[in-house]
Amino acid sequence: MKAAEEGAEPPAIRRGTNLPRMGDFNESVVLDAIRRHPGGLSRVELAHATGLSAQTVSNITRRLLDRGLARESGKRNIGSGKPRTLLETVPTSRYAVGIHLDPAVITCVLVDLLGTVVAHRGRRTPSGGDTDGTVAGMAATVNGLVEESGVDAARVLGLGIAAPGPVDTAAGRVVDPPELHGWGRYPLRDRLGAATGLPALLDKDVTAAVVAERWAGTAADSRNLLFCYLGTGAGMGLVVEDTVVRGVSGNAGEIGGLVEACSTRVLVDEALSLGVLGPEYAVADPADAQPGVARLAALAAAGDSVADGVVERLGQRVGRGVCAAATLLDVDTIVFGGPVWQILAGRLRTTIEPMVARSPFVRATHPTAVLSTALGENVAAIGAASLVLDRALSAQPRSLLLA
Amino acid sequence: MKAAEEGAEPPAIRRGTNLPRMGDFNESVVLDAIRRHPGGLSRVELAHATGLSAQTVSNITRRLLDRGLARESGKRNIGSGKPRTLLETVPTSRYAVGIHLDPAVITCVLVDLLGTVVAHRGRRTPSGGDTDGTVAGMAATVNGLVEESGVDAARVLGLGIAAPGPVDTAAGRVVDPPELHGWGRYPLRDRLGAATGLPALLDKDVTAAVVAERWAGTAADSRNLLFCYLGTGAGMGLVVEDTVVRGVSGNAGEIGGLVEACSTRVLVDEALSLGVLGPEYAVADPADAQPGVARLAALAAAGDSVADGVVERLGQRVGRGVCAAATLLDVDTIVFGGPVWQILAGRLRTTIEPMVARSPFVRATHPTAVLSTALGENVAAIGAASLVLDRALSAQPRSLLLA
Repeated sequence: MKAAEEGAEPPAIRRGTNLPRMGDFNESVVLDAIRRHPGGLSRVELAHATGLSAQTVSNITRRLLDRGLARESGKRNIGSGKPRTLLETVPTSRYAVGIHLDPAVITCVLVDLLGTVVAHRGRRTPSGGDTDGTVAGMAATVNGLVEESGVDAARVLGLGIAAPGPVDTAAGRVVDPPELHGWGRYPLRDRLGAATGLPALLDKDVTAAVVAERWAGTAADSRNLLFCYLGTGAGMGLVVEDTVVRGVSGNAGEIGGLVEACSTRVLVDEALSLGVLGPEYAVADPADAQPGVARLAALAAAGDSVADGVVERLGQRVGRGVCAAATLLDVDTIVFGGPVWQILAGRLRTTIEPMVARSPFVRATHPTAVLSTALGENVAAIGAASLVLDRALSAQPRSLLLA
Repeated sequence: MKAAEEGAEPPAIRRGTNLPRMGDFNESVVLDAIRRHPGGLSRVELAHATGLSAQTVSNITRRLLDRGLARESGKRNIGSGKPRTLLETVPTSRYAVGIHLDPAVITCVLVDLLGTVVAHRGRRTPSGGDTDGTVAGMAATVNGLVEESGVDAARVLGLGIAAPGPVDTAAGRVVDPPELHGWGRYPLRDRLGAATGLPALLDKDVTAAVVAERWAGTAADSRNLLFCYLGTGAGMGLVVEDTVVRGVSGNAGEIGGLVEACSTRVLVDEALSLGVLGPEYAVADPADAQPGVARLAALAAAGDSVADGVVERLGQRVGRGVCAAATLLDVDTIVFGGPVWQILAGRLRTTIEPMVARSPFVRATHPTAVLSTALGENVAAIGAASLVLDRALSAQPRSLLLA
């Protein structure tokens, strides 16, 4: 993580900092405000939105213009006064690479400053355990992606890696995750950083997903948000009091104690045991499960009641888990995403939405929105890239409070 | 909550605030640092601990001395230099009242600046539904407590009210909690504030408990902490990334979806149905349950295997719930407290501690401490008072980021 900080603009402010160091923080606040208003904001509006003085906003916007992060985008007439010059972010001014190491698939994306995907590639995760070879391939993919996109490599802030937990975010590696044989304690972040020449950081996949949702998704305004990721495995990315929850070791979001098994392997195994799927769908390797899930979805949609029952039970397990977490944390927004959700979303919603709406605490307190991510099945890879953007460019409240 | 803010020193800093307003925040940071070092801190150490300049620390400590919140407490020799003057908080400089409205018992405490209980009173919660009469009684208790303690009423910052959820913290009232008939939507905070003349705020009981633990308990240093409260009802107070979790509506900590029923009523009912307790322990009103719990504990301690089984099953339910929440949030500390915990702590620990230690994610990542609160069975009332101290005197990171 240190590497990424060095490669970008670290918010250098510490708890009880002296005044001169506030500049960086306020700069991020202004950039955040501009970024969240795609129609552009005038300096007067920026002062109003951020609580900063006109003079401070003027100084900061000059620096953002100098660095190419923002540009003047036209004028807006307000009443009878002088037309106000609008400011907007320059999406092509900075980029980030995200890579999602999933047991089934390795996905790599290049995104611009707004988190929009410029280019992406995916491949089946090799099962042989040749980690050095796989990392060399990942590095070649990253480098190829940047080169072919025509993006100025100097504008690429860094590389984010999303991986299933348990992870060791300080050391930048995974810790014996059940389905990633050979990767346990392999120095993934450092090797991939060295091989690409990019500052690199590693975070848990579900945390990446919720950061993507905040950076580029539709739930950006929620301060208390739960992202339920359904892929090869399942987990939750959490935002609480406007802060992304990482926990003591970066392993927040683990739902093993909350939701009964809902990996793709368990889902396909249940369908196999009920005879809904034939033995050709047997899962030896996690990467094998996707066709079985797709077939199960097609059968359920075609009216196969046994197939539908498998999906219904998955929905009930997931629904109980998200209701438990949503009421524990008192969130107003639940976002679903991930490859399994992409396939089964329509059917799962019919089970999960009423469960949330009927939840006693939801009924007693406030409505809770159930959403599908707009970022598609690559949300964790987009999240990995968003981690870099977020670290480099976002106003980090926690940075004010480091001990 | 507004009332309490008006009555004390509100941290007035907003997101991206201009520099002059940082004073209040830094003042709170300095007071926090002094408060957390009972042995006293020199100005040089304060500058080091807070990251503030020597001049800023000097200005702030002068203001704290002027306001009576801190005092010089002696000198410490450091090497060959001039002895350094130490600063410490003045515990008797400010006070707060806390009241816990529990379905079984109403507890009222007066605490000093450090959260130490100066005086307390408890009474059975009236079941008749005469809320106006009960509030009048609560106000008389509060006023009597302050008067008899001999504390200067002008030094009492305010009144905190802790109540079981669901609560409406903005309106300052409870929202139809299962066991508090008649209190639903009654304007508790405003009536009690008016009757006592104190600025008042209301928060959920489990949130109050975790604030008490941070203010006056032994887990003050943990940044990711879970307080499992076992009383008439059960719930969890949560601290995530050094922030107390309240959620969208102040109702975070609800564990209905996580832990099967573990109210005192359920516990006693199970013992009744197994014949462990006689019909004289039947629970008509929540206040009736306490003797049954105490009897159950005595029987289990005396070797009654059926009684022990009831407690063991409670421990397993609670253990599963805390493991699920602890791994979801990746905390390093689980604190237990509340009247039921006080009675059954020894026995419940033998069940719960190994469950936490064996939890797969705990084993894969980091040890997780299981503690009993040092604050005793009145922890929620102490928490109610701590809410006032925390609001008035603590450095509030979130206050820097209000939209």
